[in-house]
Amino acid sequence: MERFLKKYYAITDRKQFRYGFETQIKRMLDSGIRMFQLREKDLPSDELFELASKMEKLLSGYDASFFVNDRVDIAVLTGANGVHLPSKSIPVEAVKHKFPSLIVGKSCHSVEDAVRAEKEGADYITFSPVFDTPGKGKPKGLEALKEVVKAVTIPVYALGGITEERIPEVLKTGVYGIAGIRLFIK
Amino acid sequence: MERFLKKYYAITDRKQFRYGFETQIKRMLDSGIRMFQLREKDLPSDELFELASKMEKLLSGYDASFFVNDRVDIAVLTGANGVHLPSKSIPVEAVKHKFPSLIVGKSCHSVEDAVRAEKEGADYITFSPVFDTPGKGKPKGLEALKEVVKAVTIPVYALGGITEERIPEVLKTGVYGIAGIRLFIK
Repeated sequence: MERFLKKYYAITDRKQFRYGFETQIKRMLDSGIRMFQLREKDLPSDELFELASKMEKLLSGYDASFFVNDRVDIAVLTGANGVHLPSKSIPVEAVKHKFPSLIVGKSCHSVEDAVRAEKEGADYITFSPVFDTPGKGKPKGLEALKEVVKAVTIPVYALGGITEERIPEVLKTGVYGIAGIRLFIK
Repeated sequence: MERFLKKYYAITDRKQFRYGFETQIKRMLDSGIRMFQLREKDLPSDELFELASKMEKLLSGYDASFFVNDRVDIAVLTGANGVHLPSKSIPVEAVKHKFPSLIVGKSCHSVEDAVRAEKEGADYITFSPVFDTPGKGKPKGLEALKEVVKAVTIPVYALGGITEERIPEVLKTGVYGIAGIRLFIK
């Protein structure tokens, strides 16, 4: 499974994209990104299903891994590699029990969240917000990130306010990878 | 499967309930309702999952059938009998293909919708709004309902603005059953 968990993890927000959806994703692929999460919370199920289907096809041509935010059904039905469960989502255990082949990621915001997610069977976690980022509350900082990395054995992705310049210091904490939205929009 | 499709089909809207959720559902069960759809569009996935789990347990004690609106994942994970797909939802075919044992209902608003839903594999449809009901557009009327009933072979539920007094004239159109929100809140 770890072959699907790459070092850089792009999360979509089409409203921030500089180009059309497909072009923007292709630009990310061109820059070397091979792990994506479709996160478009405002879309109704039909449009999200269509976009996920399109994205799955697009990414499969690149051997890139594909996750869907929150919607386990759309992940399963479009053949995604996994689902990323936000804080207020279906329990990890329930998803793992019914769909054991699905890779399950979980959003965490504290050491307690991280330990619980690992216990419940999450395959990886994101920890956020590491730095200041709009609408996401007080940044947790690199020391908190280090503690999370120490507290669990599953891969941890740092997320939130990470810029290219800050990547080296973030990687020094021992994180498995770096997740981002704006970071990968070029 | 038709044993799960009862004549009266209650769709939830907890904001219109007169009692707490569980009490209100129990009152419906006491009045003889044995088919329910959980439709609480504003809830985040964790709360919807919890409410669906609670409802599934409650209903299983009564041998009542249970459907979840839109969220195929929550239907599958909570052991519901089926899913009801609104207009802007995942395609019926995709759901039937992956989860053949799930009963799939589809919201329809025209003869064309109904014919398409049957072709795609829907097990039943709702046709709405039959009468005037807040926020649902122009009522379709009983003649349109009759046409829908004639156009498909799958069960058709009449929905929208139906009051107790109107039940007899609605049933005369040949519908399989009657669905409602306020109609069943007592």
